[in-house]
Amino acid sequence: MKILIVGASGTLGQAVAAELGQRHEIIRAGRHGGDVRVDVRDAASVEAMYASVGELDAVVCAAGKVPFAPLAELTEAKYLEGLNDKLLGQVRLVQAGMNHLRDRGSFTLITGILTEQPILAGACASMANGAVEAYVRAAAIELPRGLRINVVSPNVLTEAMDAYGPFFRGFEPVSAARAALAFSRSVEGLQTGQVYKVW
Amino acid sequence: MKILIVGASGTLGQAVAAELGQRHEIIRAGRHGGDVRVDVRDAASVEAMYASVGELDAVVCAAGKVPFAPLAELTEAKYLEGLNDKLLGQVRLVQAGMNHLRDRGSFTLITGILTEQPILAGACASMANGAVEAYVRAAAIELPRGLRINVVSPNVLTEAMDAYGPFFRGFEPVSAARAALAFSRSVEGLQTGQVYKVW
Repeated sequence: MKILIVGASGTLGQAVAAELGQRHEIIRAGRHGGDVRVDVRDAASVEAMYASVGELDAVVCAAGKVPFAPLAELTEAKYLEGLNDKLLGQVRLVQAGMNHLRDRGSFTLITGILTEQPILAGACASMANGAVEAYVRAAAIELPRGLRINVVSPNVLTEAMDAYGPFFRGFEPVSAARAALAFSRSVEGLQTGQVYKVW
Repeated sequence: MKILIVGASGTLGQAVAAELGQRHEIIRAGRHGGDVRVDVRDAASVEAMYASVGELDAVVCAAGKVPFAPLAELTEAKYLEGLNDKLLGQVRLVQAGMNHLRDRGSFTLITGILTEQPILAGACASMANGAVEAYVRAAAIELPRGLRINVVSPNVLTEAMDAYGPFFRGFEPVSAARAALAFSRSVEGLQTGQVYKVW
Protein backbone atom coordinates (compact mmCIF):
# COMPACT_ATOMS: atom_id res chain seq x y z
CA MET A 1 0.00 0.00 0.00
CA LYS A 2 0.97 3.61 -0.51
CA ILE A 3 0.30 5.35 2.81
CA LEU A 4 0.41 9.05 3.61
CA ILE A 5 1.19 9.88 7.25
CA VAL A 6 0.35 13.42 8.34
CA GLY A 7 2.35 14.45 11.38
CA ALA A 8 4.98 11.86 10.57
CA SER A 9 7.78 13.58 12.48
CA GLY A 10 5.98 13.55 15.84
CA THR A 11 6.41 10.86 18.47
CA LEU A 12 3.30 8.99 17.37
CA GLY A 13 3.83 9.64 13.66
CA GLN A 14 7.32 8.13 13.82
CA ALA A 15 6.00 5.04 15.55
CA VAL A 16 3.23 4.64 12.97
CA ALA A 17 5.77 5.05 10.16
CA ALA A 18 8.02 2.44 11.78
CA GLU A 19 5.13 -0.03 12.10
CA LEU A 20 3.57 0.44 8.66
CA GLY A 21 6.91 1.08 6.93
CA GLN A 22 7.86 -2.56 7.44
CA ARG A 23 5.28 -3.60 4.85
CA HIS A 24 4.24 -0.50 2.89
CA GLU A 25 5.42 2.58 1.04
CA ILE A 26 5.27 5.58 3.41
CA ILE A 27 4.96 9.24 2.42
CA ARG A 28 5.70 11.55 5.32
CA ALA A 29 3.82 14.86 5.57
CA GLY A 30 4.36 17.56 8.15
CA ARG A 31 4.08 21.24 8.89
CA HIS A 32 7.84 21.75 8.97
CA GLY A 33 9.36 18.80 7.14
CA GLY A 34 8.93 15.39 5.58
CA ASP A 35 8.43 14.32 1.99
CA VAL A 36 5.66 16.87 1.56
CA ARG A 37 4.66 19.94 3.56
CA VAL A 38 1.14 20.48 4.81
CA ASP A 39 -0.63 22.78 7.21
CA VAL A 40 -3.96 21.09 7.99
CA ARG A 41 -5.37 24.43 9.16
CA ASP A 42 -5.36 25.55 5.54
CA ALA A 43 -7.67 23.79 3.04
CA ALA A 44 -5.53 24.94 0.10
CA SER A 45 -2.43 23.44 1.70
CA VAL A 46 -4.25 20.11 2.13
CA GLU A 47 -5.39 20.15 -1.51
CA ALA A 48 -1.87 20.97 -2.69
CA MET A 49 -0.46 18.08 -0.66
CA TYR A 50 -2.88 15.61 -2.21
CA ALA A 51 -2.22 16.94 -5.71
CA SER A 52 1.52 16.44 -5.22
CA VAL A 53 1.49 12.86 -3.88
CA GLY A 54 -0.87 11.18 -6.36
CA GLU A 55 -3.21 8.29 -5.61
CA LEU A 56 -3.07 6.72 -2.16
CA ASP A 57 -4.30 3.59 -0.40
CA ALA A 58 -4.41 5.07 3.07
CA VAL A 59 -4.23 8.41 4.86
CA VAL A 60 -3.15 8.41 8.49
CA CYS A 61 -3.29 11.46 10.71
CA ALA A 62 -1.10 11.67 13.79
CA ALA A 63 -1.32 15.45 14.10
CA GLY A 64 -3.63 17.90 15.83
CA LYS A 65 -2.98 20.60 18.41
CA VAL A 66 -5.38 22.04 20.96
CA PRO A 67 -4.87 24.73 23.59
CA PHE A 68 -4.95 23.58 27.22
CA ALA A 69 -6.33 26.05 29.77
CA PRO A 70 -8.63 26.02 32.78
CA LEU A 71 -12.29 26.13 31.78
CA ALA A 72 -12.83 29.72 32.87
CA GLU A 73 -9.88 30.85 30.73
CA LEU A 74 -10.97 29.09 27.56
CA THR A 75 -11.97 31.97 25.34
CA GLU A 76 -13.88 31.66 22.10
CA ALA A 77 -10.63 32.29 20.22
CA LYS A 78 -8.98 29.35 22.00
CA TYR A 79 -11.89 27.01 21.26
CA LEU A 80 -11.79 28.02 17.60
CA GLU A 81 -8.02 27.52 17.48
CA GLY A 82 -8.38 23.95 18.73
CA LEU A 83 -11.37 23.15 16.52
CA ASN A 84 -9.63 24.54 13.45
CA ASP A 85 -6.57 22.39 14.06
CA LYS A 86 -7.49 19.03 15.59
CA LEU A 87 -11.09 18.80 14.33
CA LEU A 88 -11.31 20.67 11.04
CA GLY A 89 -7.71 19.85 10.15
CA GLN A 90 -8.64 16.18 10.14
CA VAL A 91 -11.98 16.83 8.43
CA ARG A 92 -10.11 18.64 5.64
CA LEU A 93 -7.91 15.57 5.19
CA VAL A 94 -11.04 13.45 4.72
CA GLN A 95 -13.19 15.79 2.65
CA ALA A 96 -10.37 16.55 0.21
CA GLY A 97 -8.84 13.09 0.45
CA MET A 98 -11.96 11.25 -0.68
CA ASN A 99 -11.02 11.97 -4.28
CA HIS A 100 -7.41 10.86 -3.89
CA LEU A 101 -7.88 7.47 -2.27
CA ARG A 102 -8.06 4.33 -4.37
CA ASP A 103 -11.16 2.10 -4.03
CA ARG A 104 -11.34 0.49 -0.57
CA GLY A 105 -8.73 2.90 0.77
CA SER A 106 -8.86 4.17 4.34
CA PHE A 107 -8.57 7.19 6.60
CA THR A 108 -7.31 6.78 10.15
CA LEU A 109 -7.65 9.81 12.41
CA ILE A 110 -6.43 10.56 15.93
CA THR A 111 -8.25 11.57 19.14
CA GLY A 112 -7.37 10.48 22.66
CA ILE A 113 -8.68 9.35 26.02
CA LEU A 114 -9.92 12.86 26.90
CA THR A 115 -13.07 12.26 24.85
CA GLU A 116 -14.34 10.11 27.70
CA GLN A 117 -12.01 10.77 30.63
CA PRO A 118 -11.55 14.52 31.11
CA ILE A 119 -8.70 16.29 32.89
CA LEU A 120 -8.17 19.78 34.26
CA ALA A 121 -7.62 22.26 31.41
CA GLY A 122 -8.68 19.76 28.79
CA ALA A 123 -12.17 20.96 27.78
CA CYS A 124 -11.09 22.07 24.31
CA ALA A 125 -9.24 18.80 23.76
CA SER A 126 -12.23 16.76 24.89
CA MET A 127 -14.55 18.79 22.65
CA ALA A 128 -12.38 18.36 19.55
CA ASN A 129 -11.93 14.63 20.22
CA GLY A 130 -15.65 14.06 20.74
CA ALA A 131 -16.38 15.85 17.49
CA VAL A 132 -13.84 13.80 15.53
CA GLU A 133 -15.14 10.48 16.87
CA ALA A 134 -18.77 11.29 16.04
CA TYR A 135 -17.73 12.59 12.62
CA VAL A 136 -15.90 9.32 11.93
CA ARG A 137 -18.98 7.26 12.78
CA ALA A 138 -21.07 9.48 10.48
CA ALA A 139 -18.60 9.66 7.59
CA ALA A 140 -18.15 5.88 7.65
CA ILE A 141 -21.70 5.25 6.44
CA GLU A 142 -21.47 7.75 3.57
CA LEU A 143 -18.00 7.29 2.10
CA PRO A 144 -18.16 5.99 -1.50
CA ARG A 145 -16.24 3.20 -3.28
CA GLY A 146 -15.68 1.07 -0.19
CA LEU A 147 -13.57 3.77 1.46
CA ARG A 148 -13.20 3.26 5.20
CA ILE A 149 -12.58 5.57 8.15
CA ASN A 150 -11.58 4.88 11.75
CA VAL A 151 -10.01 6.78 14.60
CA VAL A 152 -7.39 5.80 17.17
CA SER A 153 -7.88 7.06 20.73
CA PRO A 154 -4.73 6.48 22.77
CA ASN A 155 -4.13 7.09 26.44
CA VAL A 156 -1.38 9.61 27.24
CA LEU A 157 1.83 8.46 25.54
CA THR A 158 4.68 7.18 27.68
CA GLU A 159 7.00 9.38 25.63
CA ALA A 160 4.92 12.46 26.53
CA MET A 161 4.87 11.95 30.28
CA ASP A 162 7.81 14.28 30.92
CA ALA A 163 5.75 17.13 29.50
CA TYR A 164 2.20 16.07 30.39
CA GLY A 165 2.65 13.87 33.45
CA PRO A 166 1.24 16.37 35.96
CA PHE A 167 -2.02 16.59 33.98
CA PHE A 168 -2.37 12.80 33.71
CA ARG A 169 -1.71 11.54 37.24
CA GLY A 170 -3.06 8.03 37.59
CA PHE A 171 -3.50 7.50 33.87
CA GLU A 172 -1.70 4.43 32.55
CA PRO A 173 0.58 5.64 29.76
CA VAL A 174 0.87 3.63 26.54
CA SER A 175 3.92 3.58 24.30
CA ALA A 176 3.73 5.18 20.88
CA ALA A 177 4.64 1.78 19.45
CA ARG A 178 1.57 0.23 21.09
CA ALA A 179 -0.68 3.04 19.83
CA ALA A 180 0.81 2.51 16.36
CA LEU A 181 -0.59 -1.04 16.35
CA ALA A 182 -4.10 0.41 16.38
CA PHE A 183 -3.26 2.41 13.26
CA SER A 184 -2.07 -0.82 11.65
CA ARG A 185 -5.34 -2.49 12.66
CA SER A 186 -7.30 0.30 10.98
CA VAL A 187 -5.20 0.51 7.81
CA GLU A 188 -4.58 -3.19 7.32
CA GLY A 189 -7.94 -4.44 8.62
CA LEU A 190 -11.37 -4.06 7.07
CA GLN A 191 -13.49 -2.33 9.72
CA THR A 192 -14.98 1.12 9.37
CA GLY A 193 -16.56 3.66 11.72
CA GLN A 194 -14.55 2.33 14.65
CA VAL A 195 -12.94 4.12 17.58
CA TYR A 196 -9.87 2.03 18.49
CA LYS A 197 -9.21 2.76 22.14
CA VAL A 198 -5.67 2.12 23.28
CA TRP A 199 -6.41 2.27 27.03
CA MET B 1 -35.96 27.85 41.00
CA LYS B 2 -35.55 30.56 38.41
CA ILE B 3 -34.89 28.80 35.12
CA LEU B 4 -33.84 30.28 31.78
CA ILE B 5 -34.89 28.27 28.73
CA VAL B 6 -33.08 29.12 25.51
CA GLY B 7 -35.08 28.07 22.47
CA ALA B 8 -38.28 28.15 24.50
CA SER B 9 -40.58 28.62 21.53
CA GLY B 10 -39.48 25.45 19.74
CA THR B 11 -41.23 22.10 20.03
CA LEU B 12 -38.83 20.82 22.65
CA GLY B 13 -38.47 24.16 24.43
CA GLN B 14 -42.24 24.42 24.89
CA ALA B 15 -42.36 20.92 26.35
CA VAL B 16 -39.52 21.71 28.76
CA ALA B 17 -41.26 24.93 29.80
CA ALA B 18 -44.51 23.02 30.36
CA GLU B 19 -42.73 20.42 32.50
CA LEU B 20 -40.57 22.74 34.59
CA GLY B 21 -43.14 25.55 34.66
CA GLN B 22 -45.36 23.45 36.92
CA ARG B 23 -42.91 23.96 39.76
CA HIS B 24 -40.55 26.81 38.83
CA GLU B 25 -40.28 30.34 37.47
CA ILE B 26 -39.50 30.18 33.75
CA ILE B 27 -37.79 32.84 31.65
CA ARG B 28 -38.15 32.20 27.93
CA ALA B 29 -35.33 33.21 25.60
CA GLY B 30 -35.32 32.94 21.83
CA ARG B 31 -33.95 34.34 18.62
CA HIS B 32 -37.25 35.87 17.56
CA GLY B 33 -39.35 36.12 20.71
CA GLY B 34 -39.88 35.24 24.34
CA ASP B 35 -39.18 37.21 27.51
CA VAL B 36 -35.68 38.00 26.31
CA ARG B 37 -34.05 37.85 22.89
CA VAL B 38 -30.81 36.00 22.28
CA ASP B 39 -28.78 34.85 19.32
CA VAL B 40 -26.41 32.19 20.66
CA ARG B 41 -24.17 32.67 17.61
CA ASP B 42 -23.18 36.04 19.06
CA ALA B 43 -21.24 36.16 22.36
CA ALA B 44 -22.33 39.76 22.98
CA SER B 45 -25.97 38.78 22.61
CA VAL B 46 -25.51 35.98 25.15
CA GLU B 47 -23.85 38.36 27.60
CA ALA B 48 -26.62 40.91 27.14
CA MET B 49 -29.25 38.26 27.82
CA TYR B 50 -27.60 37.21 31.06
CA ALA B 51 -27.18 40.82 32.17
CA SER B 52 -30.88 41.47 31.61
CA VAL B 53 -32.29 38.47 33.47
CA GLY B 54 -30.30 38.58 36.71
CA GLU B 55 -29.22 35.59 38.80
CA LEU B 56 -30.46 32.16 37.78
CA ASP B 57 -30.68 28.67 39.24
CA ALA B 58 -30.66 26.83 35.95
CA VAL B 59 -29.98 27.40 32.27
CA VAL B 60 -31.58 25.03 29.80
CA CYS B 61 -30.78 25.00 26.10
CA ALA B 62 -33.26 23.53 23.64
CA ALA B 63 -31.80 25.32 20.61
CA GLY B 64 -29.11 24.58 18.05
CA LYS B 65 -29.21 24.34 14.29
CA VAL B 66 -26.93 22.41 11.97
CA PRO B 67 -26.93 22.07 8.19
CA PHE B 68 -27.84 18.66 6.78
CA ALA B 69 -26.16 17.63 3.53
CA PRO B 70 -24.53 14.55 2.02
CA LEU B 71 -20.94 14.12 3.18
CA ALA B 72 -19.40 15.11 -0.13
CA GLU B 73 -21.39 18.36 -0.13
CA LEU B 74 -20.46 19.43 3.39
CA THR B 75 -18.17 22.37 2.77
CA GLU B 76 -15.97 23.99 5.38
CA ALA B 77 -18.45 26.87 5.54
CA LYS B 78 -21.26 24.46 6.38
CA TYR B 79 -19.26 22.71 9.10
CA LEU B 80 -18.40 26.08 10.63
CA GLU B 81 -22.03 27.19 10.46
CA GLY B 82 -23.12 24.12 12.43
CA LEU B 83 -20.28 24.33 14.93
CA ASN B 84 -20.90 28.02 15.53
CA ASP B 85 -24.56 27.41 16.27
CA LYS B 86 -25.11 24.07 18.00
CA LEU B 87 -21.65 23.66 19.57
CA LEU B 88 -20.27 27.12 20.27
CA GLY B 89 -23.72 28.58 20.86
CA GLN B 90 -24.13 26.23 23.79
CA VAL B 91 -20.54 26.74 24.92
CA ARG B 92 -21.17 30.49 25.02
CA LEU B 93 -24.19 29.87 27.25
CA VAL B 94 -21.94 27.99 29.68
CA GLN B 95 -18.81 30.12 29.56
CA ALA B 96 -20.75 33.36 30.06
CA GLY B 97 -23.39 31.78 32.28
CA MET B 98 -20.94 30.53 34.92
CA ASN B 99 -20.98 33.97 36.48
CA HIS B 100 -24.75 34.30 36.48
CA LEU B 101 -25.74 31.01 38.09
CA ARG B 102 -26.30 30.78 41.82
CA ASP B 103 -24.26 28.23 43.80
CA ARG B 104 -25.21 24.65 42.85
CA GLY B 105 -27.01 25.89 39.76
CA SER B 106 -27.05 23.85 36.56
CA PHE B 107 -26.68 23.90 32.81
CA THR B 108 -28.57 21.42 30.65
CA LEU B 109 -27.59 21.29 26.99
CA ILE B 110 -29.05 19.45 24.00
CA THR B 111 -27.55 16.98 21.52
CA GLY B 112 -29.32 13.99 19.95
CA ILE B 113 -29.05 10.37 18.92
CA LEU B 114 -26.86 11.23 15.91
CA THR B 115 -23.80 11.37 18.18
CA GLU B 116 -23.83 7.60 18.22
CA GLN B 117 -26.26 6.52 15.48
CA PRO B 118 -25.48 8.41 12.26
CA ILE B 119 -27.81 9.02 9.33
CA LEU B 120 -27.33 10.11 5.73
CA ALA B 121 -26.52 13.83 5.55
CA GLY B 122 -25.95 14.07 9.29
CA ALA B 123 -22.15 14.31 9.59
CA CYS B 124 -22.19 17.92 10.77
CA ALA B 125 -24.94 17.16 13.29
CA SER B 126 -23.04 14.13 14.61
CA MET B 127 -19.85 16.17 14.87
CA ALA B 128 -21.49 19.01 16.79
CA ASN B 129 -23.28 16.58 19.12
CA GLY B 130 -20.12 14.61 19.85
CA ALA B 131 -18.29 17.81 20.66
CA VAL B 132 -21.02 19.02 23.03
CA GLU B 133 -21.17 15.72 24.92
CA ALA B 134 -17.40 15.55 25.43
CA TYR B 135 -17.36 19.22 26.44
CA VAL B 136 -20.06 18.56 29.04
CA ARG B 137 -18.04 15.73 30.58
CA ALA B 138 -14.97 17.98 30.71
CA ALA B 139 -16.70 21.12 31.97
CA ALA B 140 -18.43 19.11 34.73
CA ILE B 141 -15.16 18.47 36.56
CA GLU B 142 -14.04 22.11 36.46
CA LEU B 143 -17.16 24.15 37.13
CA PRO B 144 -16.87 26.08 40.42
CA ARG B 145 -19.31 26.53 43.36
CA GLY B 146 -21.07 23.19 42.89
CA LEU B 147 -22.36 24.18 39.46
CA ARG B 148 -23.50 21.20 37.42
CA ILE B 149 -23.78 20.47 33.72
CA ASN B 150 -25.53 17.70 31.79
CA VAL B 151 -26.82 17.12 28.31
CA VAL B 152 -30.00 15.54 26.98
CA SER B 153 -29.70 13.38 23.86
CA PRO B 154 -33.16 12.58 22.49
CA ASN B 155 -34.11 10.35 19.61
CA VAL B 156 -35.93 12.09 16.74
CA LEU B 157 -39.01 13.82 18.15
CA THR B 158 -42.45 12.49 17.29
CA GLU B 159 -43.48 16.05 16.53
CA ALA B 160 -40.65 16.37 13.98
CA MET B 161 -41.43 13.21 12.00
CA ASP B 162 -43.44 15.05 9.36
CA ALA B 163 -40.32 17.00 8.43
CA TYR B 164 -37.54 14.52 9.26
CA GLY B 165 -39.22 11.13 8.93
CA PRO B 166 -37.50 10.15 5.67
CA PHE B 167 -34.08 10.66 7.30
CA PHE B 168 -35.00 8.62 10.38
CA ARG B 169 -36.62 5.47 9.00
CA GLY B 170 -36.63 2.79 11.67
CA PHE B 171 -35.78 5.17 14.49
CA GLU B 172 -38.28 5.07 17.35
CA PRO B 173 -39.51 8.65 17.83
CA VAL B 174 -39.93 10.06 21.33
CA SER B 175 -42.40 12.77 22.27
CA ALA B 176 -41.10 16.19 23.25
CA ALA B 177 -42.87 15.68 26.59
CA ARG B 178 -40.84 12.55 27.22
CA ALA B 179 -37.58 14.29 26.27
CA ALA B 180 -38.57 17.12 28.63
CA LEU B 181 -38.49 14.68 31.53
CA ALA B 182 -34.75 14.26 31.02
CA PHE B 183 -34.33 18.02 31.33
CA SER B 184 -36.25 17.84 34.59
CA ARG B 185 -33.97 15.04 35.78
CA SER B 186 -30.93 17.19 35.04
CA VAL B 187 -32.27 20.43 36.52
CA GLU B 188 -34.03 18.96 39.55
CA GLY B 189 -31.56 16.12 40.21
CA LEU B 190 -28.00 16.32 41.47
CA GLN B 191 -25.90 14.57 38.85
CA THR B 192 -23.27 16.24 36.71
CA GLY B 193 -21.33 15.34 33.56
CA GLN B 194 -24.13 13.06 32.38
CA VAL B 195 -25.51 12.39 28.91
CA TYR B 196 -29.20 11.59 29.41
CA LYS B 197 -30.17 9.46 26.44
CA VAL B 198 -33.87 9.45 25.61
CA TRP B 199 -33.77 6.48 23.23
